[in-house]
Amino acid sequence: MGTEIGVQPNGKATCAETDSQVCPHFHGAVELIGKRWTGAILYTLSGGSQRFAELKAGVPGMSDRLLSARLKELEKAGLVDRQVHSSTPVMVTYELTDKGLSLTPIMESLSDWASEWHKA
Amino acid sequence: MGTEIGVQPNGKATCAETDSQVCPHFHGAVELIGKRWTGAILYTLSGGSQRFAELKAGVPGMSDRLLSARLKELEKAGLVDRQVHSSTPVMVTYELTDKGLSLTPIMESLSDWASEWHKA
Repeated sequence: MGTEIGVQPNGKATCAETDSQVCPHFHGAVELIGKRWTGAILYTLSGGSQRFAELKAGVPGMSDRLLSARLKELEKAGLVDRQVHSSTPVMVTYELTDKGLSLTPIMESLSDWASEWHKA
Repeated sequence: MGTEIGVQPNGKATCAETDSQVCPHFHGAVELIGKRWTGAILYTLSGGSQRFAELKAGVPGMSDRLLSARLKELEKAGLVDRQVHSSTPVMVTYELTDKGLSLTPIMESLSDWASEWHKA
């Protein structure tokens, strides 16, 4: 059989690699984060809550349509929270959830690695 | 102006964020690693040198053509070394370079995060 997926007493999924197959949790995570612009959006949000226009300025080259689609995916994956503030005009902000925040140190490590090794 | 890219005395690129723009090094790295199957290939190679068929078995669902293309990209990016052994029949193995190996702890953190948070 392939990779075993178990459930810990706290209800969280585990992944015991019983052979050389890649853990599907890992595979899912890396494909989510690695999707075009997603890493950049998460990285920008790691600095704190942002409005749509701020996010767009932080990730140059991304269209409104694509930013909107990526934010919806990240909301669905539970990494980003969309907040509607009852101001005039209505203000919408995006921020990382606990799940999204827990990814921040990994994003930072990747950023350090990138600065050291990856020539843009 | 946008993100400043400098060079440290040791010749490695740095990325000082002078405003909220995403560092292009980070962006390049996350898009490289996040490319479909690339994370899975790197993760599999982090266990040590592998032959093509072993890699293929470790990443189920990936075609020969795609595995071959991804390996070429990773070679070009300096993360993977292709070794041809003078045996009969000729054996070809793939292994992580120092650059690829330096990514392993980050991949492991991401794997831990995935097991904890991401339901496949």
